Amino acid sequence: MTEPTWMYENFEPAGSAIGYRITRKLDEVQSPFQKIEIYESTDWGNLMLIDGAMMLTTRDNFLYHEMMSHPALFTHASPKRVVIIGGGDCGTLREVLKHPGVESCTQCDIDEQVTRMAEKWFPELCDKNNDPRAELLFDDGIAYMANCPAGSVDIVIVDSTDPVGPAEGLFNKAFYESCFRALKDDGILVQQSESPLVLLSLIQEMRGEMRKAGFTTFQTLPFPQPCYPTGWWSCTMARKSGDFEYRVVDSRGKAFETKYYTADIHQGALAPIPFVSAALGK
Amino acid sequence: MTEPTWMYENFEPAGSAIGYRITRKLDEVQSPFQKIEIYESTDWGNLMLIDGAMMLTTRDNFLYHEMMSHPALFTHASPKRVVIIGGGDCGTLREVLKHPGVESCTQCDIDEQVTRMAEKWFPELCDKNNDPRAELLFDDGIAYMANCPAGSVDIVIVDSTDPVGPAEGLFNKAFYESCFRALKDDGILVQQSESPLVLLSLIQEMRGEMRKAGFTTFQTLPFPQPCYPTGWWSCTMARKSGDFEYRVVDSRGKAFETKYYTADIHQGALAPIPFVSAALGK
Repeated sequence: MTEPTWMYENFEPAGSAIGYRITRKLDEVQSPFQKIEIYESTDWGNLMLIDGAMMLTTRDNFLYHEMMSHPALFTHASPKRVVIIGGGDCGTLREVLKHPGVESCTQCDIDEQVTRMAEKWFPELCDKNNDPRAELLFDDGIAYMANCPAGSVDIVIVDSTDPVGPAEGLFNKAFYESCFRALKDDGILVQQSESPLVLLSLIQEMRGEMRKAGFTTFQTLPFPQPCYPTGWWSCTMARKSGDFEYRVVDSRGKAFETKYYTADIHQGALAPIPFVSAALGK
Repeated sequence: MTEPTWMYENFEPAGSAIGYRITRKLDEVQSPFQKIEIYESTDWGNLMLIDGAMMLTTRDNFLYHEMMSHPALFTHASPKRVVIIGGGDCGTLREVLKHPGVESCTQCDIDEQVTRMAEKWFPELCDKNNDPRAELLFDDGIAYMANCPAGSVDIVIVDSTDPVGPAEGLFNKAFYESCFRALKDDGILVQQSESPLVLLSLIQEMRGEMRKAGFTTFQTLPFPQPCYPTGWWSCTMARKSGDFEYRVVDSRGKAFETKYYTADIHQGALAPIPFVSAALGK
């Protein structure tokens, strides 16, 4: 029995850190793209780190995965074709496939090793990987979106690491133009958009690039996420037009269980926050 | 110019930690009750630690202070007489006194040194200390509530440290009985109630003790608070009866500015969260 020790992630852009009490390292692999480590913790289950940055814990990943998927899928009137860029831990895929109306969901992560590690250490997140509607690709998400047939996708979910390293190309106009082209007119792009408290400038830049690519309507939804810097995270939804049917309330009758997401939580996440609105200029 | 260093607070009950990049220690005092330290950080302004536990930062304290005060004051139909137990940094007092209808607010913190340090290092939180409606006492909050005239108070705000050390006596039936007695029939007790993710058992126990003291109606409102463990915190409101007028929506016309609190944020914080409701049994 090893004595537990504390492990910290210093998040330089925010000047703050998050740490966990861990018991041992369970696994490690250096993929062609990044270093993936798995630790066992005393209170948070297993932890996955990529290049030293906390990606997920067994205990709190439901917050992120539910909020990256359900708000977009319950806003779109009838999402059938979903693409996830990144998302290699398969937790977002799992939430998407809870929607019975979804006919196909392609997950395109550049790094197969993320999925292999998830299958091994977070098997509960992978329980929909063999769903006949699921397609798992290990390829470049930028190229995948560029080659997507125009007007073929209802929802694109960009579930990536931070905008440095492999994910850097997922936060600019060129990539968003591919998404815009691939989406149907009532399609929705949703992307993780960092901490609303300390990284508002990133959300501003992201929206600016999305706007240049043609998107017109934006919503940034905050949610708690203890394992990410500041413990407060967000996703940003972008639409080609604000003119389509809006149906948050429909999720009251959803046919599956969630631990955090509900129609009222969704509605609450849409409440403008004065200091955020001041920065985002709306 | 000192090189910045990282300072961490290990939160044992949660097995998680929060840290900050700090430039120097600004001040330190050992009061009869606790050790108070002030640090300067690179990104979060000044930090106050009590016995090694992060109490507040310049940058994010508005989240806590707004959510400890405005939901209760905007739920009560007409709050005139408010008591704050603890709250020595004066940030909650400042928010309470933004309400023009409040006629008096007594802040009773056992430790005068907390207020002296706040005046020195967080002067913006103390800008209402000389308001003629404010009374600052440095005394035992348990005795203060026990001696309060029955039915004299509209709102009691328990803005204390965690339920260990000096604040331990603020989390049990005896103290809640004093609050119950001091409150008018439509009065509200509100108390900080730790992290909804990792300390649900504390919220359960707190509600249990409040119930034994006679309170019947409870609401636990979550909010982001990066400087506290998990970055996700809560307050719990308790009422003697659920039969009084409920007026959240009135705050739409509030006469003062806030950075986080709005009527819609308040409403959103009332949305039941499935995993929390399951634990709290409602």
